[in-house]
This record gives sequence, structure tokens and C-alpha cells, in this order.
Amino acid sequence: MSDPDKPKIILRPRIRILRGREIVMGPGKAELLAHIEETRSLSESARRMKMSYMKAWLLVQTMNRNYSKPLVQAERGGRAGGGARLTAHGRRVLASYREMEVLSLAAIQAPWKKLRRMLKPSSA
Amino acid sequence: MSDPDKPKIILRPRIRILRGREIVMGPGKAELLAHIEETRSLSESARRMKMSYMKAWLLVQTMNRNYSKPLVQAERGGRAGGGARLTAHGRRVLASYREMEVLSLAAIQAPWKKLRRMLKPSSA
Repeated sequence: MSDPDKPKIILRPRIRILRGREIVMGPGKAELLAHIEETRSLSESARRMKMSYMKAWLLVQTMNRNYSKPLVQAERGGRAGGGARLTAHGRRVLASYREMEVLSLAAIQAPWKKLRRMLKPSSA
Repeated sequence: MSDPDKPKIILRPRIRILRGREIVMGPGKAELLAHIEETRSLSESARRMKMSYMKAWLLVQTMNRNYSKPLVQAERGGRAGGGARLTAHGRRVLASYREMEVLSLAAIQAPWKKLRRMLKPSSA
């Protein structure tokens, strides 16, 4: 068990992209795309994220209407429960977003170490 | 007026640092520190952020108890309305956080340009 006097220190960078008032990419939407890529099922992806099917479907609709091409496509002859797959556009968008996350995290290591040393000690 | 068919596209990177369950640095706390540095007044800083004095005071308390030294100090013989200033530790923490923001934004420009081109057009 972790020492309550030495709480865990967590760095949480979050990149969100807005188009107008809508978030068109962020941690949740990226996770949903990754699950769709893996499971080829919107209902299974929703279940893994403890999200309703309707919520997942709305996130997909938000993405599909804001990019120049859809990111997610219903599978031909779509299975019961919502067969879905990423389009080539969807895979490229997700890859660019993941690249942003990785590059951001790498770039901030030096000042993060400096800042971290100015906090009270942690258990981590 | 902006074209409603071409909504503005915004990149919003946000870095938060948690110690245990508390956010000990993030966009709001950094902004508060910057206002305190500039105004030397907690009440004026709160006013500029449209935040109650009590809320600003609580944010300062959260920061002060999570770093190895306080970030904000009441001014000696503190003025009415809450004279306050950043300590040397506070200035260093804020500088490291700003450095993280700047480095992160610089690092993600290439994939951000790629991703941006995959969105529908914007007015910006």
C-alpha cells in the first residue's frame, strides 16, 4: 500500500482539438478510435470504455462530420451490435494525434524533472 | 463576423500535475501565480480571474502545502484585501511550468499541421 504521507505524483498532459465549439479530437475520442481499430465493433468499444452505445455513436458522428472524410465507417453488411472500422483517414488522424502526445511528453521531460523536485516527496 | 460554415480550429494542450488527488499545477493555478506576481494582491488576482477571494485563497493553500516550500507568501504587514507575493520557489515552479507549455507546443507542430489538414476547412 502506498504511503499516505507520500502521495503519487502524476504528470497529465492532455491535447484537445476544437473545431468551433466541438472537441474533434482528445483523449476519449482517440481511445474510442483505438478500440474500434482493435475490436471492429462499436458496441464492444463502448463497453470497454464503460460508455453507452449511444454516447459512442455520438462521438463517432462528431468526428465524422468535422473531418474532410469520415474516420469511422460501418462495416459492409454491418453485424448486429454495430460492426465498424477505421478508415484510412481515421488511422492517419489517430496516428498524428498519438504522435503529438508522444512528442509532447518527450519534449517536457527536462522542466518536468525540475518542477517535480520542487514538490514534496512522493511514493512513486 | 466569422463564417459559421468554417468554424475556428483551436489546438488546446493542457498540462496538469497531480500529487495524490490534488491538482498542484495546471492552467488555472499558473494563471493565478502570474497575476499574483504582477499585482502583488490576491484579491486583485481573484478579481481578474472572475473568481472569489476564497477560491483563490484555497488554490494558494493547495499549492503551498504540496511543494517543498510555499509558492505564495502573504506580504509582511499584509495590506487590506490580501497583499501577496510569489516566493523564489514560486517563481521557479511557474517558470518550469511555462517552459513545459512552450516546449510541448513547439514539439507537436509537425503532426498538428498534418492532423489539421485532415479536418474540414476553418475560418482561421
